[in-house]
Amino acid sequence: MPRPALVALRRHLPILDWAGRYDRNAFSSDLLAAVIVTIMLIPQSLAYALLAGLPAEMGLYASILPLVAYAIFGTSRALSVGPVAVVSLMTAVAIGNLGLSDPAQIAAAAIALAFLSGLMLIAMGLLRLGFLANFLSHPVIAGFITASGILIAASQLRHILGVDAGGHNLPEILAALGRALPQTNLPTLLIGLGALGFLFWVRRGLKPLLIRSGLRVRLADMLAKAGPVAAIVATVALAWGLGLEARGVAIVGAVPQGVPPLGLPAFDIGLWAQLAGSAALISVIGFVESVSVAQTLAAKRRQRIVPDQELVGLGAANIAASVSGGYPVTGGFARSVVNFDAGAETPAAGAFTALGILLAALFLTPALYFLPKATLAATIIVAVLSLVDFSVLRRSWAYDRADFAAVATTIAVTLGIGVEAGVSAGVALSILLHLYRSSRPHIAEVGLVPGTQHFRNVNRHRVLTAPELLTVRVDESLYFANARFLEDYLAARVARDPAIRNVVLMCSAVNEIDLSALESLEAINHRLLDAGIRFHLSEVKGPVMDRLERSDLLDALSGQVFLSQFDAFAALTPPAQDAPRATTA
Amino acid sequence: MPRPALVALRRHLPILDWAGRYDRNAFSSDLLAAVIVTIMLIPQSLAYALLAGLPAEMGLYASILPLVAYAIFGTSRALSVGPVAVVSLMTAVAIGNLGLSDPAQIAAAAIALAFLSGLMLIAMGLLRLGFLANFLSHPVIAGFITASGILIAASQLRHILGVDAGGHNLPEILAALGRALPQTNLPTLLIGLGALGFLFWVRRGLKPLLIRSGLRVRLADMLAKAGPVAAIVATVALAWGLGLEARGVAIVGAVPQGVPPLGLPAFDIGLWAQLAGSAALISVIGFVESVSVAQTLAAKRRQRIVPDQELVGLGAANIAASVSGGYPVTGGFARSVVNFDAGAETPAAGAFTALGILLAALFLTPALYFLPKATLAATIIVAVLSLVDFSVLRRSWAYDRADFAAVATTIAVTLGIGVEAGVSAGVALSILLHLYRSSRPHIAEVGLVPGTQHFRNVNRHRVLTAPELLTVRVDESLYFANARFLEDYLAARVARDPAIRNVVLMCSAVNEIDLSALESLEAINHRLLDAGIRFHLSEVKGPVMDRLERSDLLDALSGQVFLSQFDAFAALTPPAQDAPRATTA
Repeated sequence: MPRPALVALRRHLPILDWAGRYDRNAFSSDLLAAVIVTIMLIPQSLAYALLAGLPAEMGLYASILPLVAYAIFGTSRALSVGPVAVVSLMTAVAIGNLGLSDPAQIAAAAIALAFLSGLMLIAMGLLRLGFLANFLSHPVIAGFITASGILIAASQLRHILGVDAGGHNLPEILAALGRALPQTNLPTLLIGLGALGFLFWVRRGLKPLLIRSGLRVRLADMLAKAGPVAAIVATVALAWGLGLEARGVAIVGAVPQGVPPLGLPAFDIGLWAQLAGSAALISVIGFVESVSVAQTLAAKRRQRIVPDQELVGLGAANIAASVSGGYPVTGGFARSVVNFDAGAETPAAGAFTALGILLAALFLTPALYFLPKATLAATIIVAVLSLVDFSVLRRSWAYDRADFAAVATTIAVTLGIGVEAGVSAGVALSILLHLYRSSRPHIAEVGLVPGTQHFRNVNRHRVLTAPELLTVRVDESLYFANARFLEDYLAARVARDPAIRNVVLMCSAVNEIDLSALESLEAINHRLLDAGIRFHLSEVKGPVMDRLERSDLLDALSGQVFLSQFDAFAALTPPAQDAPRATTA
Repeated sequence: MPRPALVALRRHLPILDWAGRYDRNAFSSDLLAAVIVTIMLIPQSLAYALLAGLPAEMGLYASILPLVAYAIFGTSRALSVGPVAVVSLMTAVAIGNLGLSDPAQIAAAAIALAFLSGLMLIAMGLLRLGFLANFLSHPVIAGFITASGILIAASQLRHILGVDAGGHNLPEILAALGRALPQTNLPTLLIGLGALGFLFWVRRGLKPLLIRSGLRVRLADMLAKAGPVAAIVATVALAWGLGLEARGVAIVGAVPQGVPPLGLPAFDIGLWAQLAGSAALISVIGFVESVSVAQTLAAKRRQRIVPDQELVGLGAANIAASVSGGYPVTGGFARSVVNFDAGAETPAAGAFTALGILLAALFLTPALYFLPKATLAATIIVAVLSLVDFSVLRRSWAYDRADFAAVATTIAVTLGIGVEAGVSAGVALSILLHLYRSSRPHIAEVGLVPGTQHFRNVNRHRVLTAPELLTVRVDESLYFANARFLEDYLAARVARDPAIRNVVLMCSAVNEIDLSALESLEAINHRLLDAGIRFHLSEVKGPVMDRLERSDLLDALSGQVFLSQFDAFAALTPPAQDAPRATTA
């Protein structure tokens, strides 16, 4: 194979990096990690399918082939992909928007959503559009995850109460719960509260207890992760033994036994068009979550992940989900950390986990018949409440009010209107605030520090100026969002001061001048000339000057381009005023 | 009145600035300008109403009260507001979106559009949101105006041919014209081509002729501006004398005679919701056009305009249009220049123009009965073809490919899909490209220039470095769009080079660090620490440092914050390697 093709192949098939060196040691480490992650992933897969409004087996299917696909195409050694809470909620919302009621259509829509999301992720990866994820600022993500956690927990309360009460946002969910409260099913409530209490105790109380009784910290940690499995076993036994189904306790019921159903998703352009927006949001949110987990874990072993290839890996995982009866997946935080801590060395651990889940799908599903939905809801609630963290509000308030506004808006809109509106509002607002800020750059009028060649702000330093010379330094690149600001500033400044004959724009902080800013400079030049004022530039950086030389500005410029501001000052201060006036504002 | 209230009043009522000093000289200058602008504005008002798909009198009404309102609230001394080509086209599109056929409903929608646009402009002015207009980069505006000019000219061809052929974009218009071609009305075509030929000759040939025959340049210019009036008089006479209406020539017909009908627009929340998006686009486009004309003219006399107050002035003009049977207005380029050149000294010239148009509405309308629509169409075509200027494509290609992409997209989408999609696509793309560019800032690895305390790019200069010390300088403020880029860059860089023990981030070009970037720095710090590397900062600017001190980063930092990069280099280069290796890459 020619070398460039080989390089491209290695880039897009990271498995080639590690598969050749795979040995017995790595195998045993990966196998142990896989067993632990499998035990954790089975209840999660079932629970998140419930959260997405899908049959339980789709959660299992989404945890088999996607893991194999990621093992081939992904660059993180420890990332564990599969159904996760936030993406499951977003899947529920996306499908809810369609207003379907036929379970087969709902499943088909989830499969189409995974397919679209996979295509988008792969396209973004191949076109190197991973930078799009940067539009989600950290505070927006933090606010979105926190608000989603609250929404998810609230949406699961109906399973704890055993009532029917849906909604897309917090007011809707709470109102529906309020209306449905009188219909609460007591046995369901007891099971739900019992599972909740047990799972919280496992998190908070069991681990310290195990450590005190002599277990090693890591083993205690692993055992605590098996809590949900214990809750499932216990409540299945209860529901079966006490015949709780007859008492109105909602159970999972018949789960098909066997391998995932393979097949291409139906080509339905109308459905795809309706799902495209949701698929894009799910892709970006999933990618951002996944890549930040992957990067944190890779750094611990001084490995590296390649963000654009991660897009391909996650895209392949979603395509795999869609062709095997699953729904959108991404890299999960909790399970990736468990995978890492359990010693996973290569993505093969993910493939072994897939094998574990496949065995569950083949042999365990009959045992899930009596599983109360309340148990799964309790699993979800305990898992997502760890996502809820309002400290970002306090931190952003203290650090940067613009970030605070973005995070507060994201949380408020997500809770009050819904997840898609929330994340969109947060992204739009943070971009708007950034553009607003850079549209009003810091502009300082500067003068010469006596005895030096330095120029500093006339408002902060004792400097020399001349009445007919105005020198301004703009502390930002010039581009469309601030070009007009500079025009307005200079127009107002020279209108106020009839003595001015020369204006120098000091460009030491200008890394770029785009066409809008170029035309603003041309307009400033013409307008100043109309008012009898010459316009000069100083300290223009090399690359900026290269570009200006390709334009007409330098020919039309009424003044000069000075290499240094000191040259400009020396040339433009008239000899009659050899001792310029000192200002100390 | 308390002083702050007086200041606020003066700010929002610029008329108080000049009315007190108004004298006989200013009066006679303003009156002369008003007469000339009135002669120019009458045919334009009728023609642009036709372009907007509205009855001719609405064009006149939009040229009376709005001028008075702007004279009170506007800050430009020379701006002439009224119906303009691009805003008339956008009005036609906005109303076309509603799918109305009843003329009364169409007129009501145009009135509502002016009202909404007025409210939005005033709100933007009072909230100081004028910066929103900065989102329209110069190339996007230039491309949009050019493409709109083509669309407008194409849309008027049906009146020249005397056929019925509409459309929202160029393919639709051309297809409709092609289908309608066989129905061409010959007398209409002759009138239209005659008027077109005459008007082009007036523009290109008459003025030089008049100058050669001894007229002063300015007078020749003014006479040439009266060309459309001559075309109207001649074709009205023709249509009346030859009874062309009976031969199928479309004429303006009965135009109501009298003062504009005063009244508040009907409160129709459903209609307003449908029109809100269009009103926002019209407001922003109108404001940008208007403010750039106003600023150009103000500079010539060293006056200043106040952009936020201009929003209030234009908003008041649109409210005035809506309460007096008009439609959306803004400051027109051609007529403002005429007004300025004719010697207008204060906004009173606008009020006198309003009086002129009022007289026309009172006494001239019967004479307009036989005015062929083909004449108005010819007026529009000649006026808008001067807007068409593809040179922005060449200039942007030569100067900046990102700007070229934005302008090419704007033109293509405006022509191919429509005006609203075109301007939206241009704005979105230019913001996206800007964020993309600043999301990949220039990052240089730097070393010490021997014998100095300066640090320069290792790839460009012969500098001293040390294998266990990596120093990078990032040439951009750090914010959400590039925070992850820096994370990825450093993760990849240290993964490649196991010798590194210390990383210094040189912040001399960092004007700002937002919360996302702060968290990225925290993540970088933690990840480097996990890999056994200490992370340092150097040359952090004062305001950035103030803010960092309010965060936890400095406490958690594994390394130090050095005042200068030289201090960092001196402290972090181990004594054993007193003579660091020199690189010349």
